[in-house]
Order: sequence, then structure tokens, then C-alpha cells
Amino acid sequence: MEPSEITAIVNVGDDLTLHGLTICPDLDTIMYTVAGLNNTELGWGLEGESWRVMDELGALGGDAWFRLGDRDLATHLYRSQRLSEGATKTSVTQELCERLGVKARLLPVTDAELATCFETEFGPMSFQEYFVRHHHDVAVTGIDVAGADEAVATPAVIEALLEASRIVIAPSNPLISIDPILRVRGVRDLLEQRRSDVFGVSPIIDGRALKGPADRLLSELGYEVSCLGALDFYKGLIGTWIIDEADAVRADEVRNRGVNVLVTTTIMAQHDNARRLSAAVLS
Amino acid sequence: MEPSEITAIVNVGDDLTLHGLTICPDLDTIMYTVAGLNNTELGWGLEGESWRVMDELGALGGDAWFRLGDRDLATHLYRSQRLSEGATKTSVTQELCERLGVKARLLPVTDAELATCFETEFGPMSFQEYFVRHHHDVAVTGIDVAGADEAVATPAVIEALLEASRIVIAPSNPLISIDPILRVRGVRDLLEQRRSDVFGVSPIIDGRALKGPADRLLSELGYEVSCLGALDFYKGLIGTWIIDEADAVRADEVRNRGVNVLVTTTIMAQHDNARRLSAAVLS
Repeated sequence: MEPSEITAIVNVGDDLTLHGLTICPDLDTIMYTVAGLNNTELGWGLEGESWRVMDELGALGGDAWFRLGDRDLATHLYRSQRLSEGATKTSVTQELCERLGVKARLLPVTDAELATCFETEFGPMSFQEYFVRHHHDVAVTGIDVAGADEAVATPAVIEALLEASRIVIAPSNPLISIDPILRVRGVRDLLEQRRSDVFGVSPIIDGRALKGPADRLLSELGYEVSCLGALDFYKGLIGTWIIDEADAVRADEVRNRGVNVLVTTTIMAQHDNARRLSAAVLS
Repeated sequence: MEPSEITAIVNVGDDLTLHGLTICPDLDTIMYTVAGLNNTELGWGLEGESWRVMDELGALGGDAWFRLGDRDLATHLYRSQRLSEGATKTSVTQELCERLGVKARLLPVTDAELATCFETEFGPMSFQEYFVRHHHDVAVTGIDVAGADEAVATPAVIEALLEASRIVIAPSNPLISIDPILRVRGVRDLLEQRRSDVFGVSPIIDGRALKGPADRLLSELGYEVSCLGALDFYKGLIGTWIIDEADAVRADEVRNRGVNVLVTTTIMAQHDNARRLSAAVLS
């Protein structure tokens, strides 16, 4: 498949305003990764990054816990300026992608403001407080997405969901990376309509998430911590559920829920595996 | 005099919001200079500066004409974050000065937003468009300070003007650096009240400004380009007018306006001269 044939609909629920800057962590992570500019050593941010501004900000007594590299800051300055001029997140993302040579189309699910927030054992927290400051090491009793009721999917997102030959729900965290997308008006209905073309990749393998708090959150919010629990979270949306070979024994339970099942290697640590998973999704 | 006995009341008319950041060029320039951190090579900004963020912003196609160094950016990030948390410019300035070891007290004249703007031969321009982008190389037909009618001087500024043993109007550009201060409600009245303690240093020497467009602007707005023209601009406010030895022949004209005159070296290029001027102002 040509990269230009791929559209990624991206979560904006963990976007934040910090130091006056609008920061879109999910859009940027995907953009940098697809551009081949991601920092593989850190696991986030840009390659060849430097930290001059953060070091100085720390010396001034500023909040430097959310690490913004010097290169990365340019993205946030660019976006913040364009938004202040009246541009939408959608158009700014397109501009940045053009500059960085990203051929795939990246679409924020909405141009409205969303804010995923957590009810925790220590009280309410914003996404970044939960995820970055506390390293998601707190018990969560509820997740809300402020602004989701009023937010509507952009025309480009609606068109993409209507016209895609296949819709793939990536093995991201269902509760904090995918659900804020599903909560935006228009998205869930369209996925239900197109259910037979919706392929989901289970983020839970052998009862665990590869990284992040998906397993813990599923359990805390009452779901089985398994490929089945994740499927139940997406109830009514999935036509074909792709599970790892480690979970092959659960294939019949998936079928019993009226969902097609595909068993393959879903761990994308090696390039070959990623290629095989992509081929399975496209087959 | 101890630095801690000095209060500087600073213009905020050329403050701007760029890339989402609140930037206060006059406050920062004075703060960096008094802290001994100013970049003497460039004539503005911080010593040991680097330009990683601006270089990346330029590569992204962003507006990089207003050069913000990496170290300098930390100041703007700090200020923008604190303002978003509800802090005033006054308190943020105090925090930054403490961190940078500035013993003198720096006070923005107001916590309200001011914006100096120019009517020019090419239409209206913001301060930074006029000063930085066009290098003040355009004809000006009028200067306005948006927000000045509603802005009030802060309590700290009013107290300082009431209690200072001596008030000095520095040889900055009268029209664009001092006038926006004078236009803030409360300031002009207080200076008139305290006129006998108000010392002004002429920014015009032998018919020219040492740097910047003060001479050109005085002429364009109908004043004589001389120490007399600058004094006339401050009509009613000055008790003692300090002029350079080069203008000694005009001392009587100053006196004829009912203003005391002091003739000394006003060019502060050498440290000794600066010291002599300070001594004259304090004598």
C-alpha cells in the first residue's frame, strides 16, 4: 500500500496547553514516527534532540517535568502560532506533515478541544499528570473526556470513515487512546455502520499489555484483562478481531461473540513481524 | 546607592504574543542587563545564547523573523505558564529577577495589556513589525497605545512614584519607550505633582539619537530634533533637564522654559561616563 493511501485518525484527548503552548502528544508521536524522526533511544520525541530550553527553564524554577526538547518545541511554537492565527488543528497537522515529508494523512479526530481526565485514588488528574508526572502508577476509578459531548468529528474524518476500504483500530490503549476518539460525535455511529470492515488488533497479549497501563486500567474499570476483555470494551464495533498466537486458545470465544477472528503475531518489535501483521490486516 | 534602593518602572507597550508566548522585550532587556547576562555582541538578548529552536522553526516554515534564543525562550515559557496560572506580570517579573539575582526592583508600569501601534506610510503596524521586521525604516504619521485608556498603574508603581526621593526619566526613546508609560492612567498626574524631583536625561545629543529612531520620530511628529524638542515632548513633567556637553549652548533655552538644567557627559558608552552621569543625576 502506498503511504498516501493511509489515513490515521488520531486522539487529541491528551492534548494540553503548557507554557502557553498547545501540545498534541499523539499527533506529534505519530508524525515523528512516520517521518522516521522518532527518538528510538528515549522511546518518545525526536531524534538528535537537545534540552537547552528545559535546562534553562528548570534553572528559572519553572515546571520542567514535562520534557520538551528544543527540536520538539519548534513544532509546538509553530502549531501555537498558527492556531492563534485561526488555523485548525487539522490544517496545522497537514502543514507540519508536508514539511516533515509524511505521506500518510494524519487527522485529529476533531478540531474541538478534548481533555481526558482521570478520577484516581488521589483525586482528579489531567492526562499528563496521570501519565507523565505519576507514571500511571495510581489506581483509577473513572475516566472522562471533557468536551467530548460537544465535539464533532471533522468532515475529513467522517469522509475517511465512510470511504475507507478497511478501518483498523490500532493496538493502542483502548481506554485512554482510542476511547476519546470513539466518544467524539459521529465516530461510534460510523464504525457501527461499517462494522464488517472494522479490524481491531488486540492490545492485550497473554493477559498483559506490551507497555503502558492498558491491562491495569481494564481491570480497574471492570473488564477481563485479556484479548476478550479488550474486545468487550469495543462491543458492537469490531468485524474482525486480530489476536496474538499466544491467545490462539481464545479464538472460539471471539467467534462466539459473532466476531471474525484472525490469529497472527501481533508484537511489532521486529520489522518483519510488523510487516506480517500489516499483511494480515490488509489480506 | 544600593541596587535594592532602585526601582525601574518599565514599558510594556511593546509586549507581544508570539507562538502562544507572552514576550516582554523591555522588561527582559533590562532584567538581563542588570543581571549582567546581556549579550554584548548582539546588543540584545542573553549571553551564551543558542538558536536550536528558531533554526528548527525556520525549517518547519514558521515565522522566525523575531529571533528567540533557546535561553531566552525559557524566560518566555516561564512567564507564559505563570500568567496562565493567574499570576500578574508584576509578580512574574519579581520571580524572574530573584532567580537571576537582580537586586533592583523592576516594575511593569501596568498589569493590563498595552500595545503600541504605528500609523505608517505602509499602513498600520504593530511595534515589532515596525521595529524588528522593518528595522524602523518607514515613515510614521502617528503612534497610538491600544489599551492605555483602560490601563491603570499598579499599586507598586504608584507607591514608587509617590515615595521615590528622585524620579529619573531615562534617555530612552521618548515616543515609543517612555510615552506608553506616561499614557497609563495615574503616571502623568504623579509626575506633574512631583515635577521638582523629576530629572530627565535628553536622548538627543547634538541633534541626533545615539541609536534607534527617536530623532526621526520627533521630526515626523512635529518636534524639533534637539534636546529642546525632547524637553518639549515632556512638557510639564521635568524639573531638571540633563543635556550633553555638546548641547551646552542650549542651556539658556532650557532655563527659559522654567526648567533647571544640568550639563554633563550623557553618552554612556564608557563605564566612567555612565558613572559620572549617575553621579550627576543623584547629586
